[in-house]
Amino acid sequence: MLESDLALIQRGCDELLLESELIDRLRMGRPLRVKAGFDPTAPDLHLGHTVLINKLRHFQDLGHHVMFLIGDFTGMIGDPTGKNATRPPLSREQIEDNAKTYREQVFKILDPDKTEVCFNSAWMEPLGAAGMIRIAAQHTVARMLERDDFGKRYRNNQPIAVHEFLYPLCQGYDSVAMRADVELGGTDQKFNLLVGRELQKHAGQAPQVILMMPLLEGLDGVNKMSKSLGNYVGIAEPAREIFGKLMSVSDELMWRYFELLSFRPTHEIAGLRNQVKHGRNPRDIKVLLAQEIVQRFHDRRAAEDALAEFEARFRHGANPADMPEIAIDCADATMPIAQLLKQAGLTASTSESLRMIDQGGVRIDGERVIDRATPIAKGQTVVLQVGKRKFARVTLG
Amino acid sequence: MLESDLALIQRGCDELLLESELIDRLRMGRPLRVKAGFDPTAPDLHLGHTVLINKLRHFQDLGHHVMFLIGDFTGMIGDPTGKNATRPPLSREQIEDNAKTYREQVFKILDPDKTEVCFNSAWMEPLGAAGMIRIAAQHTVARMLERDDFGKRYRNNQPIAVHEFLYPLCQGYDSVAMRADVELGGTDQKFNLLVGRELQKHAGQAPQVILMMPLLEGLDGVNKMSKSLGNYVGIAEPAREIFGKLMSVSDELMWRYFELLSFRPTHEIAGLRNQVKHGRNPRDIKVLLAQEIVQRFHDRRAAEDALAEFEARFRHGANPADMPEIAIDCADATMPIAQLLKQAGLTASTSESLRMIDQGGVRIDGERVIDRATPIAKGQTVVLQVGKRKFARVTLG
Repeated sequence: MLESDLALIQRGCDELLLESELIDRLRMGRPLRVKAGFDPTAPDLHLGHTVLINKLRHFQDLGHHVMFLIGDFTGMIGDPTGKNATRPPLSREQIEDNAKTYREQVFKILDPDKTEVCFNSAWMEPLGAAGMIRIAAQHTVARMLERDDFGKRYRNNQPIAVHEFLYPLCQGYDSVAMRADVELGGTDQKFNLLVGRELQKHAGQAPQVILMMPLLEGLDGVNKMSKSLGNYVGIAEPAREIFGKLMSVSDELMWRYFELLSFRPTHEIAGLRNQVKHGRNPRDIKVLLAQEIVQRFHDRRAAEDALAEFEARFRHGANPADMPEIAIDCADATMPIAQLLKQAGLTASTSESLRMIDQGGVRIDGERVIDRATPIAKGQTVVLQVGKRKFARVTLG
Repeated sequence: MLESDLALIQRGCDELLLESELIDRLRMGRPLRVKAGFDPTAPDLHLGHTVLINKLRHFQDLGHHVMFLIGDFTGMIGDPTGKNATRPPLSREQIEDNAKTYREQVFKILDPDKTEVCFNSAWMEPLGAAGMIRIAAQHTVARMLERDDFGKRYRNNQPIAVHEFLYPLCQGYDSVAMRADVELGGTDQKFNLLVGRELQKHAGQAPQVILMMPLLEGLDGVNKMSKSLGNYVGIAEPAREIFGKLMSVSDELMWRYFELLSFRPTHEIAGLRNQVKHGRNPRDIKVLLAQEIVQRFHDRRAAEDALAEFEARFRHGANPADMPEIAIDCADATMPIAQLLKQAGLTASTSESLRMIDQGGVRIDGERVIDRATPIAKGQTVVLQVGKRKFARVTLG
């Protein structure tokens, strides 16, 4: 029992400090208080964010008490240097709205009845300036400068504002106030998670176990999944989008996603790996992953539809039923295909169009385009396709 | 008018930043808001502390608004590291008691009707943890480490707790909250006084002029006056003590004390200097200083008494009327004088007794002792004198 619990907790985990402490606490037999903190600003989650939430779910499945912390206190401060116009202070109403959005999203993974949603303003506001000073007294400047990014910035004469030293202390104090047994965080959070341990010791509490999850790779399999890199799968995206994006990942990345995103037991995943090793098409396995994820954020029906649509499109060469209809004005009698693709929004530029044509990735009415200069005549309606998943029905008027 | 005001403000001052700003403000013609901050812990003032208070008095005499700030906010935090058992947090009652004692002492120098006594808890408590973070955002870690003592400690791997960075910010924020035009401080306060300027600029206020007063030398003329070094004159000491201690300073130190402690105008002091230069006994001038100070902290009558007693003792060789009566048990038939002096508390050790004898500083019934081994017989009563001002009537029983 303890061993299987421990195995589930450690699944996909990057670092666990300290395993022995975790074992001691699990042995106590009481539900552990498990904390994970989230930024109150932009609760538009992608699969990268769900790695932590999935881990909370694991704890929940094992009967532990999950605390989903929304860091509203610092959110309401905004950027106190005033230099970052993109981080204005959030109002109480915005926090509430964001919290509602968070709930809607995370309760697709967590059990709402077993999840405590916390706001750190509850204890940070009564703390006062005096309380902040008392907490700051529990850490040294030298230890703060040991944090990688602080140390580098200090050595490179890049400014560090004094309040940046206070934020890890606030996060640490959250653990004291919440009496956390375990805190989850990304590997980039290690320093702050350790501060929580220190402050708990000062407060006479047993220091929290810290469990660091890796940062999920994006669809490219290289960079961390992020909105700004465009290599993400948003959990609020349409079922077909999610499905298609997941079907596009490499076979290697698929196994990584199975580990971190799927709730299939490890032995099942091992079985699937074995099937592939003995010749099964990895695409069949990818379908299982894509269906599981779509079902989580939509429903079974959506997952089935997405699969049917995907199969129809790629197995039978059919065009997707709901492709966009686009009308494009044409001043001349014809328009070169490269330009048309750009105007239809299927490529970002004419040069991208040309590259895609050269790679054989462009089709007109299902026929691969070979000639870069192929013209489309005014008055024509054609189905254009770029790559595997971009389609449009274009009328040149 | 402006010139004489400026001369009085700059009297004895070590550094003024910026003189041009001070002139601009004086020219506005409105009363300036002049701030000086004091520790709420031990309001047992000695003359060293009064250097600043005297400067406040100068401003008051020139019609400005004097704000005597008691730093109760940090006093009520105590030593938040818990390492310093000698700095327990002060209760509200202790702060009130200390403030009362402060008032009793400083109103011997300042005009109570023209002095605003402020407590920084008034604005620090409503500030909250969020306000503390906002203030901390206005200063960088690198600038903090430029402060001499922080920089040294960091380089020497001596711990600096993070809250130590917050205290200068609190002091600076006091200036914002008080809208200070001028802040006074010791030369050792320069960094903190400058932080006030920075925070005021952030808050859209004109930065305060800062005026740094030197640290007063103690009676030895070498070290800074301090309780722990024993080279101080407490303002609550008996008139005769103050008088005698001031008469004991060197002629050179006397002029320093005239500049920083006397309210005689500078031209009068120049006149006195001139008299000494032309042969007048500096002791006569020292009497003027001693009488002024005694009168300030007691009254004119006490000053006259102290002078009369001093003259009687030293001019006419009389013993002070109120010397202590001490009875000492003696196991043998006689006791050597060196041991008796120690037992009577007139010297700290037998070796100090011997040194004083060798220097000709010990008298028995007015007769100088030459022989180190001089015995006093059991049953005798003698007047013992060590140096100029220590007397006791001792009976050896």
